Amino acid sequence: MNSFGRIFRVSIFGESHGETIGAVIDGVPAGMALCEEEFLADLARRKSGARGTTPRRESDSPQLVSGLFEGRTTGAPLTVLFRNENRRSGDYADLRIHPRPSHADWTAALKYGGFNDYRGGGHFSGRLTLPLTAAGTVAKKILSGAEFRTSLVEVGGCCDPQRFAETVENALRDGDSVGGVVECRVRGVEPGLGEPFFDGAESVLAHLLFSIPAVKGVEFGAGFASARMRGSQNNDPIADRQGHTATNHAGGICGGITNNNELTVRVAVKPTPSISCEQRTWHTGHQAVEPLIVKGRHDACIALRAGVVVEAAVAIGLADLHLLRASAAPGTGL
Amino acid sequence: MNSFGRIFRVSIFGESHGETIGAVIDGVPAGMALCEEEFLADLARRKSGARGTTPRRESDSPQLVSGLFEGRTTGAPLTVLFRNENRRSGDYADLRIHPRPSHADWTAALKYGGFNDYRGGGHFSGRLTLPLTAAGTVAKKILSGAEFRTSLVEVGGCCDPQRFAETVENALRDGDSVGGVVECRVRGVEPGLGEPFFDGAESVLAHLLFSIPAVKGVEFGAGFASARMRGSQNNDPIADRQGHTATNHAGGICGGITNNNELTVRVAVKPTPSISCEQRTWHTGHQAVEPLIVKGRHDACIALRAGVVVEAAVAIGLADLHLLRASAAPGTGL
Amino acid sequence: MNSFGRIFRVSIFGESHGETIGAVIDGVPAGMALCEEEFLADLARRKSGARGTTPRRESDSPQLVSGLFEGRTTGAPLTVLFRNENRRSGDYADLRIHPRPSHADWTAALKYGGFNDYRGGGHFSGRLTLPLTAAGTVAKKILSGAEFRTSLVEVGGCCDPQRFAETVENALRDGDSVGGVVECRVRGVEPGLGEPFFDGAESVLAHLLFSIPAVKGVEFGAGFASARMRGSQNNDPIADRQGHTATNHAGGICGGITNNNELTVRVAVKPTPSISCEQRTWHTGHQAVEPLIVKGRHDACIALRAGVVVEAAVAIGLADLHLLRASAAPGTGL
Amino acid sequence: MNSFGRIFRVSIFGESHGETIGAVIDGVPAGMALCEEEFLADLARRKSGARGTTPRRESDSPQLVSGLFEGRTTGAPLTVLFRNENRRSGDYADLRIHPRPSHADWTAALKYGGFNDYRGGGHFSGRLTLPLTAAGTVAKKILSGAEFRTSLVEVGGCCDPQRFAETVENALRDGDSVGGVVECRVRGVEPGLGEPFFDGAESVLAHLLFSIPAVKGVEFGAGFASARMRGSQNNDPIADRQGHTATNHAGGICGGITNNNELTVRVAVKPTPSISCEQRTWHTGHQAVEPLIVKGRHDACIALRAGVVVEAAVAIGLADLHLLRASAAPGTGL
Repeated sequence: MNSFGRIFRVSIFGESHGETIGAVIDGVPAGMALCEEEFLADLARRKSGARGTTPRRESDSPQLVSGLFEGRTTGAPLTVLFRNENRRSGDYADLRIHPRPSHADWTAALKYGGFNDYRGGGHFSGRLTLPLTAAGTVAKKILSGAEFRTSLVEVGGCCDPQRFAETVENALRDGDSVGGVVECRVRGVEPGLGEPFFDGAESVLAHLLFSIPAVKGVEFGAGFASARMRGSQNNDPIADRQGHTATNHAGGICGGITNNNELTVRVAVKPTPSISCEQRTWHTGHQAVEPLIVKGRHDACIALRAGVVVEAAVAIGLADLHLLRASAAPGTGL
Repeated sequence: MNSFGRIFRVSIFGESHGETIGAVIDGVPAGMALCEEEFLADLARRKSGARGTTPRRESDSPQLVSGLFEGRTTGAPLTVLFRNENRRSGDYADLRIHPRPSHADWTAALKYGGFNDYRGGGHFSGRLTLPLTAAGTVAKKILSGAEFRTSLVEVGGCCDPQRFAETVENALRDGDSVGGVVECRVRGVEPGLGEPFFDGAESVLAHLLFSIPAVKGVEFGAGFASARMRGSQNNDPIADRQGHTATNHAGGICGGITNNNELTVRVAVKPTPSISCEQRTWHTGHQAVEPLIVKGRHDACIALRAGVVVEAAVAIGLADLHLLRASAAPGTGL
Repeated sequence: MNSFGRIFRVSIFGESHGETIGAVIDGVPAGMALCEEEFLADLARRKSGARGTTPRRESDSPQLVSGLFEGRTTGAPLTVLFRNENRRSGDYADLRIHPRPSHADWTAALKYGGFNDYRGGGHFSGRLTLPLTAAGTVAKKILSGAEFRTSLVEVGGCCDPQRFAETVENALRDGDSVGGVVECRVRGVEPGLGEPFFDGAESVLAHLLFSIPAVKGVEFGAGFASARMRGSQNNDPIADRQGHTATNHAGGICGGITNNNELTVRVAVKPTPSISCEQRTWHTGHQAVEPLIVKGRHDACIALRAGVVVEAAVAIGLADLHLLRASAAPGTGL
Repeated sequence: MNSFGRIFRVSIFGESHGETIGAVIDGVPAGMALCEEEFLADLARRKSGARGTTPRRESDSPQLVSGLFEGRTTGAPLTVLFRNENRRSGDYADLRIHPRPSHADWTAALKYGGFNDYRGGGHFSGRLTLPLTAAGTVAKKILSGAEFRTSLVEVGGCCDPQRFAETVENALRDGDSVGGVVECRVRGVEPGLGEPFFDGAESVLAHLLFSIPAVKGVEFGAGFASARMRGSQNNDPIADRQGHTATNHAGGICGGITNNNELTVRVAVKPTPSISCEQRTWHTGHQAVEPLIVKGRHDACIALRAGVVVEAAVAIGLADLHLLRASAAPGTGL
């Protein structure tokens, strides 16, 4: 449920307005140099601050409280904690009775019998992607040969990066929000990762990617465009003994196994459901549809901050498959 | 690896040209009436025979060899076996040295050190979707209130069902193949299914869906189209106390939890990589790129047969979440 | 539930009087030479035939129906099937209403709402140790350097192997049964196996050992005798750089991790609950305590046949830890 | 590895001399009243202070930092943290080169390539039983009908509780230590718990019990004594329609399933390996056997403090099986 991975296993805990959120990261090989500063670059990529992102600011300082000794990982679980500093919860008093459309307010209340911490989305808040990002930093260290390039390739239907800012600005002006598409490309992925039938590389990565709040679609390589091609166009002929292919419609995964080509995945991020303009939605107290204005200021385009989170999900999946691969290689048991 | 599920747990085994393939299905509640005939309707939907599907024919008779007693499930694992009758393997002699583009021939050989059963794709064959389909039949019985409607909504880029046959026919004529998009809609899904953070309903279903050979994209509700919308368009206002929403861009899942609206998921299926026209690809024996003609006849459009398999994957995931939900309901432990 | 292991993962299915029982063994490294004949020696050790064992005879011929190609494992799941030949079920007609003491008849009926296959104990029968034994054979091949010596060290309280036959004979004569203690010693176990905190070697092995029907106690090294010693007696001083210890009260496991000394474990096997002499136990039909004579002939001492099963459980656990160890070794991810 | 449980899932992290240790407890049903004070009684039972226990004192104040809202569990993971206050590590400088007999110093160094945190045993310290105890408190709340009675039944071979203090005192005087046997009895266990084949109640409980440092043996009911009985003595005749038995040699578990009788389990705890008297053991620096005096003062009888930890392990296992049972009950999916 709140943990994932077979060997590199990440457990996430915390709530938007709780005291502490964090991750316990099990299966980290011993002897890897690591310090708190190494998390800062990824955490900064996730931070708000740009136009179109929430003005809620947190210092987001990671504390490594276990699994590290004399600057190296020990083989015991690595625990990273973050304190929530901005915990004003007055803004959220109505979510219980007037759940926001397309947020988890209603489903969480249903599932947990109304006992969920609803403040700021509680356990369903995008804030939980903070420890996920930290786990991604560790995963990328394990995958030392892999080079990640993650970018926003679409914002609100616009594919021209020059015009992304303007698109977000327009939405902001209207008290609205926009979605986007994040693309993650990874070079230098070890071939042979993925454990069919059920744990192929696409299955494992998609599982993790869909756990990121707001993700509604995942495609590898040509993805949905493949479905519109003929086999003669879509097939990737092998061009050399290393398995490099002339084209890469498969996105680096064939038969669920990485094939020594660049891994490419695209992720659809829906527009932030928190918008300033008025919505009409069910009021559970009054038992009627009533107008709702979501207070406070929010990300107008959560996709702007999602890149490093997507990258973390991909890295976590690949790190687990990498450690599994080491165990299952032919001849291991011979 | 070859099993999936936390309570309703399916293990798949077998190869395209091995003696027997099958599934062990654990976690089936005791006391459910079941017989071999109940599998036939779904199995027939998966069968070849239509124009554009492979002429390989198998009787595909399911044998239930454990877990059933006096016509009812016992609570012990249910095992279903299928014999492979069509096991001519002469056609595949070259795959070892001349791996087919966009098949798993090369990646499987790499991963398993050349020891994989390469005949007909071995464990990577679409034939493994036969036991998956059978497990789906059992899952649908567990989800007795749910109504599945699965259809092919796109073939080779064409969205008009009237013209699907023609599109396939054209590809066949050219010795080529086409991809497609399968849509699965489920009404009557129990609300509250899904176990965030990592086991939200989208994560679990996508994990299973990407394990189906040839699937390259998965989207829920509006999916990639959501990424092009504004929040005010994409948000689904709640319309009544049951949580029904005025629109359903979320595809019935919000915050990773089913929200009492129709579940909708679309799956991109790539064109069959086996095509009759000549391809030029690496020959590992000669260490050079050489022409390859894939012999035998194959599905020109595997998407034609994929619907029931997609449905099975969705049902297996929902059945597991349903059984988990029973255990985690508020008050269970009080 | 019916599967165990993280990488080397065994799923068991079947019932005493069902058509087929078997195991799906996942995570077997590719390239290992294997044939059906290799299972016969272990299966023969489990067979009945000796004085004090049941006269039920089965050929117990293993069929490998997946995961093997050209005499070697492929990396795909290995499936071994056994047909049940002796399926007379008339003898068991009363177990439903007159459950046998210390058998699973009553608990299985309770748990599965009366839908369990009660014939011969169904899924709870000792017959399920047949596929477990086969999985053990595969595990031992993976642990190629390990040497197993398993023996019966106690029968009915008697520790002198010369008198075991007589002890069993006496019980037989009285229509009674006796228990025993099986000891398994393994030399050449790779040091470093075991994954604390929760998956130490003792935890993993005990989990598997207690899944064997009739096992009621497990102790490693000096075990319960350790609890009676002082630290100065029980401590095992290290004697050389390989970690060999002067004594081996720990049974080769320290801190949950194998320490390069002989692994020793002892397992208490209760007397077969099927006895010929009269018992007085609850009759669910008559709602009263009534006399019960268990019909048919049974093992007077199941411990006589348990050695190879205990050995299989130990081997399965060690094989899984061995494959895990390969993945988690220091430096793996560096 | 460092987490256990299928639904009620406990992850443990931390080291003896690290900053913080704790547990993330997933799968806790929502709506359960809980506060930090409720942990104190169990934590006090684990505390040192009595004669024969270590004089290391910690306040052991639990901090609940997630999963709780307005005094009730939310359904999200419950995280409990403890700060280590007593972190003097000077005493342990030699363990790296002169590993203590029957401690994990040598095996941990081997397994983790010398990168383990060796101070005070690091992740292998008995201190890790502190978060385990806290998880046990939560588990016992879930099992609201169950009544636990846990006691020390043997100390250093002495079975008379009146003489336990004297036995420990004698060992202390000699700079030595003694082992003991802890018995845990649970009344009011729901019948039907346990998931054969591999997850029978004995398997799950033994797995958890052997994860407690210093445990070397586990037996249920009559355990090893069963192996010395005849079937006619050991069998437990059923006496009423609730399944109560005239005797309880099975310890409340039959066929791996709880049978509505008192659950009884006995656990062998070895003598504390830290003793004051001189030992001769390998010095990895000098590559020779050399005398070792373990500095500091330690528990002369760790079994004195183990009761509540054993109880926690039993409770955690039963809570998980209880939540699983809710999901798998006959008819759940009908």
